[in-house]
Amino acid sequence: MTQMPASTTRVLLARRPTGAPVPEDFRIVEEPLAPLADGQLRVRGQWLSLDPYMRGRMSDAKSYVKPVEIGGVMCGEVAGEVIESRHSGFAVGDLVGGDMGWQTVATSDGKGLRKLMPGVPPEKQLSVCGMPGVTAWCGLLLIGEPKPGETVVVSGAAGAVGSVVGQIAKLKGCRAVGIAGGADKCRHVVEDLGFDACIDYKAGRLREDLKAATPDGIDVYFDNVGGEILDTVLARMNPFSRLPVCGLISQYNATEAYGLRNFRSVLVNRIKVQGFIVFDFASRYPEAVKELAGWWAAGKLKHFETVAEGIQAAPAAFIGMLRGANTGKQLVKLS
Amino acid sequence: MTQMPASTTRVLLARRPTGAPVPEDFRIVEEPLAPLADGQLRVRGQWLSLDPYMRGRMSDAKSYVKPVEIGGVMCGEVAGEVIESRHSGFAVGDLVGGDMGWQTVATSDGKGLRKLMPGVPPEKQLSVCGMPGVTAWCGLLLIGEPKPGETVVVSGAAGAVGSVVGQIAKLKGCRAVGIAGGADKCRHVVEDLGFDACIDYKAGRLREDLKAATPDGIDVYFDNVGGEILDTVLARMNPFSRLPVCGLISQYNATEAYGLRNFRSVLVNRIKVQGFIVFDFASRYPEAVKELAGWWAAGKLKHFETVAEGIQAAPAAFIGMLRGANTGKQLVKLS
Repeated sequence: MTQMPASTTRVLLARRPTGAPVPEDFRIVEEPLAPLADGQLRVRGQWLSLDPYMRGRMSDAKSYVKPVEIGGVMCGEVAGEVIESRHSGFAVGDLVGGDMGWQTVATSDGKGLRKLMPGVPPEKQLSVCGMPGVTAWCGLLLIGEPKPGETVVVSGAAGAVGSVVGQIAKLKGCRAVGIAGGADKCRHVVEDLGFDACIDYKAGRLREDLKAATPDGIDVYFDNVGGEILDTVLARMNPFSRLPVCGLISQYNATEAYGLRNFRSVLVNRIKVQGFIVFDFASRYPEAVKELAGWWAAGKLKHFETVAEGIQAAPAAFIGMLRGANTGKQLVKLS
Repeated sequence: MTQMPASTTRVLLARRPTGAPVPEDFRIVEEPLAPLADGQLRVRGQWLSLDPYMRGRMSDAKSYVKPVEIGGVMCGEVAGEVIESRHSGFAVGDLVGGDMGWQTVATSDGKGLRKLMPGVPPEKQLSVCGMPGVTAWCGLLLIGEPKPGETVVVSGAAGAVGSVVGQIAKLKGCRAVGIAGGADKCRHVVEDLGFDACIDYKAGRLREDLKAATPDGIDVYFDNVGGEILDTVLARMNPFSRLPVCGLISQYNATEAYGLRNFRSVLVNRIKVQGFIVFDFASRYPEAVKELAGWWAAGKLKHFETVAEGIQAAPAAFIGMLRGANTGKQLVKLS
């Protein structure tokens, strides 16, 4: 039998970053674990998910949820195993997922925890069959409303959300065009994920390359990045096109906001632009997870990960992800 | 009996403007009228409507309709009387409306012409009960979806569309806040039109004044102007708010587009931003006109006009309107 851990290793927010986060913005501490109270359970984390939205939580700018407090544990989804329980709803050995923060062992009252599905590896339930996959599914299908034959463009195409967006677009009979940073990622997006084309925005010919890759214009643009890429895409949107805004990663580290010049296209082309957060679609979560897991099990939805080893590696992996160092879902293997 | 006119006086597009139009961009000519062919009718114009969208038609930038050709008659809605007809659908004496262009006498094949409603003055059928009113009705009700108790903000509040938007908002139980240029217009918007508040954007305190006028934030922003005002409003939008984009008048004369910095609010507040043109809602036109005419007849919908006298005055009136010189609907009295 596995020995009970006596402590948890946590990553705390040491201070609020200015611009791109640096290692000094985090502090790693080891804390002793108190005995469980009635109604609590303890989870040994197996996988920690790193996601761009966490950059927002490090700032105290007004946003849709409260920021992490200085000295607080960084927020984040963890998949792990219940190793001790005084909670009637969870038993030792259960595999669970939820926002347990950047730490190796979490103590929880069960709120917001869900039991993982059998038959799907825990790390996939943090990615293609979890929050990023559901984000792709909701944004593309419920806001983007793609029709067969239409052209769907997605930025961050090699990332956890973008990679799923393009593959769902293909499953729905659309032309899928990705935007990613670097030739290697673009090759991956086309060859491994099956997109029709992928544009390397770092090559400096975004406007021309986008035009060549979207001969019939763009019907849906799933935006993960904002800024100059959004501005360039706006100019190629078709009449009555849809533009789900999922993220603005290019702006998260920016100290001055990019000024969007092609907003006129929203009027001229009667574009529907809609910001969303996956939690807004909570009622659709089960339906989305079921469909995603079905596609994944049938081999129709590929998914790739970049894995950092151990909780100590989390800050550097997160900093790298904001620069686009990862391909696919960025995970941290906790145990 | 009125004598038949032998000629029509027309305003042509002489050249494409750079920035704000100047009188030299127009040319006024008198053209002899040929005898009617079978299927044609002749209309003596009574009123010409001047609208901001016409600035777009003077440019050859890609837009939702073709531009006016150099040497062509400026486009525009006219209300007038049929004075001669070889068309089975129209008789002498009928009052009709439609895009007959900037001219005193129009020859038409009847396409796109509609008979005016009895009981509503022709000029009202170019404004509150015509295209501008329907634009307000469709954008506010079909895209803005205001609920009682919500706060609706509209720019261009003293204009043909904005004045109707705020009054419908009041009829629907909302708080209506206008944005207009100058103390006189703001007084008019509150005292004559019944808005709850109106902000003078020329006073240089837009951010502070908007905050004071919208203590509960903004649920619907009906945008007629774009640019810096849109940017400032974006920062006060509520979660799940709606933003119909009807016009960008601040940008029509701009040689360089304004760079929108607060786009982040679209994501953070999950705003639905949607561009629209009234023609997109053609199927709702009769319903809208009926409701608007009913409100107007019942005295619930006030409407004001700025009238220029004679076709020769049209270019200067149009140039002035783009600067905001008018209050209410800008019309030209043709006869």
